[in-house]
Amino acid sequence: MAAHPVSPLAPKTYPDLPPVRGVRFATAEAGIKYKNRTDVLLMAFDEGTAAAGVLTKSKCSSAAVDWCRANLPGGKARGLVVNSGNANAFTGVKGRQSVEMTAEIAARALGCAGSDIFLASTGVIGEPLDANKFSGVLDQCAARLADGPWIEPAKAIMTTDTYPKLSGAVLEIDGVEVIINGIAKGSGMIAPDMATMLSFVVTDMPIAADVLQSLLARHVQTSFNAITVDSDTSTSDTLLAFATGKAGVDPITSMDDPRAEVFGAALSDVLFDLAILVVRDGEGATKQVTVNVEGATTDQSAFRIAKAIADSPLVKTAIAGEDANWGRVVMAVGKAGEPADRDKLAIRFGDLLVAKDGERAHGYDEAATSAYMKGEDLEVTVSLGLGEGRASVYTCDLTHGYIEINGDYRS
Amino acid sequence: MAAHPVSPLAPKTYPDLPPVRGVRFATAEAGIKYKNRTDVLLMAFDEGTAAAGVLTKSKCSSAAVDWCRANLPGGKARGLVVNSGNANAFTGVKGRQSVEMTAEIAARALGCAGSDIFLASTGVIGEPLDANKFSGVLDQCAARLADGPWIEPAKAIMTTDTYPKLSGAVLEIDGVEVIINGIAKGSGMIAPDMATMLSFVVTDMPIAADVLQSLLARHVQTSFNAITVDSDTSTSDTLLAFATGKAGVDPITSMDDPRAEVFGAALSDVLFDLAILVVRDGEGATKQVTVNVEGATTDQSAFRIAKAIADSPLVKTAIAGEDANWGRVVMAVGKAGEPADRDKLAIRFGDLLVAKDGERAHGYDEAATSAYMKGEDLEVTVSLGLGEGRASVYTCDLTHGYIEINGDYRS
Repeated sequence: MAAHPVSPLAPKTYPDLPPVRGVRFATAEAGIKYKNRTDVLLMAFDEGTAAAGVLTKSKCSSAAVDWCRANLPGGKARGLVVNSGNANAFTGVKGRQSVEMTAEIAARALGCAGSDIFLASTGVIGEPLDANKFSGVLDQCAARLADGPWIEPAKAIMTTDTYPKLSGAVLEIDGVEVIINGIAKGSGMIAPDMATMLSFVVTDMPIAADVLQSLLARHVQTSFNAITVDSDTSTSDTLLAFATGKAGVDPITSMDDPRAEVFGAALSDVLFDLAILVVRDGEGATKQVTVNVEGATTDQSAFRIAKAIADSPLVKTAIAGEDANWGRVVMAVGKAGEPADRDKLAIRFGDLLVAKDGERAHGYDEAATSAYMKGEDLEVTVSLGLGEGRASVYTCDLTHGYIEINGDYRS
Repeated sequence: MAAHPVSPLAPKTYPDLPPVRGVRFATAEAGIKYKNRTDVLLMAFDEGTAAAGVLTKSKCSSAAVDWCRANLPGGKARGLVVNSGNANAFTGVKGRQSVEMTAEIAARALGCAGSDIFLASTGVIGEPLDANKFSGVLDQCAARLADGPWIEPAKAIMTTDTYPKLSGAVLEIDGVEVIINGIAKGSGMIAPDMATMLSFVVTDMPIAADVLQSLLARHVQTSFNAITVDSDTSTSDTLLAFATGKAGVDPITSMDDPRAEVFGAALSDVLFDLAILVVRDGEGATKQVTVNVEGATTDQSAFRIAKAIADSPLVKTAIAGEDANWGRVVMAVGKAGEPADRDKLAIRFGDLLVAKDGERAHGYDEAATSAYMKGEDLEVTVSLGLGEGRASVYTCDLTHGYIEINGDYRS
């Protein structure tokens, strides 16, 4: 597979994330699919680390996802193994054997139980993943665990990503500095309800696994579940959060603890940042688009309409062509199947009113709208005029680059 | 807008459809958007013509669709006006005035009531359509109505279509030859539950409007509602059927008449033919793909899974790249949200078994599968192994051509 050019929407710089007490990691080249780059990440957590996670809703979930689903109720973790290049999905009995063996190798390397190991795989579907590739590699990783630099794990988990994705927050709780670091990968097969999207967030905050789970489930809705690149949902989507508890503050053990709100807000920022980084690396993306829907009958209805717009190939190709084709936005509203009254509809591109009361706005300025479409960060806002429901969905344009990347991925 | 190359899947020849007793038509250049080509069709029906129709479910339906919806319950028609180049959708009060005026002009030209006129418009959304463009034009058309050639109306209704679409059937009922002729247009914004798809079918069979409506509603499910190009649904989708009753046989007045079945089968053939012609002209299409799902819990569930596969940009780009990426078919099955057991799943490309029991098939032949993918007509069959439900959905690949055509449509 040829390397693809870096997304024009890539960040200019990467944050230098601080170490997280209780977390160490190493990456390696296992040669699973890619050559001359890291493709395996081993992360080790100190004893007492709480785990939470959100996994794909696909009916054909990968072997690694099945493994995590089985282990999450335990709420604790000592290690994480992630590989890129092979999703170990739809690999039948061999897939199950492969995850068991990988967990065993990692557990031996870290000196813990297999059920304390979390696993994630991303890449081609349907190719058996040979766990033997991990055997020497994870031992070597375990021998050189370190607490930085954080760009290394972000790089090791990339597939068609054109840049590594990392984000972090430092907050003060009870006068103590608490760290939240996150990494993510994903650039295609991205749709709400997760995506071929892997993301791992670690913190030194002492927080009970069930509280961490509640906060993760809440904030995934407005971050990873509110992005779409191509409406496709992966077999392997995995968002895991690990809390080592090493920050010297009292643990959060209930959602009623007011600090849960504070910590949740910071977590939400990190998740949102990572989700946007994923959209901006959408395969072939040249523009980021925020679709806002307001005035819907409910928030859920607003979300469905926003998603219909953000998923529409016709809307996305028009944006790629810098064409202010708001008629296609009308089309997408119409097809969403949600309450909408054509004759109350208003549409704005940025601050420019293009349609109002079911027709082109008086004073519609084609030149100004066309100029707006040349920007890199676009906003489409639909006002339905029916109620108070609102939602935002984040996407990118649909370009030749997407076809290029996906027409020859496997070969 | 530059002309796009003719689809490689275009038919080599066009049928020379026979005249239909009681139907005459003419086309003209009204200069609505296109230059040097016909863009208006006037069709006239003899008195006593029954009408039936299926219209878009879009919440933002066009003014012409609203007009047809209001007139269909009457069940009778004397004229049809179709224009290409402007959809007269999302044009507010002006749009309503425009359809009223157009119907009035046509009614005057044909000497009938405005409510006997059916209207359809296709093209850009959101641009007001000036009905004055029709005033001289429809009178001229009315003066030179003829019963052929049928390729002319098929041409006049084209937008981004790269070839005209027509199909017909001749059947014998009670020893009398009965004609069914159909035309269609559409090549983007095509999804089940109609599409930017216009289709008009005429017959000389005497058949009651409600029976015609029942047959149309039934057979649209396995034809126009079973195709998808880009999952987008138009504001303007219109399928109308007109029966002049001029064939010298007793009328079909009930679905219990055994001849309803015979006539329905021929109608179904014409609708299916036209629907496939639309898919084969899918914007940028280079391959036609039939997606079969069998062994689902119900037919409806099978349809939803088939549609998820046929709509998936990742499946469609892989097919464009001639890549036997059955892993993406697994992904699409998984995201459909319908009952599926990964470990019972089998997938065939043509006759080649590529996956079975939740993993790559034993004896999977990469070379043979890759060779198969180079064909123009592909078949993907998913067996779920759960029940008796089955459905087929027809689509095309997703290529650079789609991006090309849709990136600069409006300009």
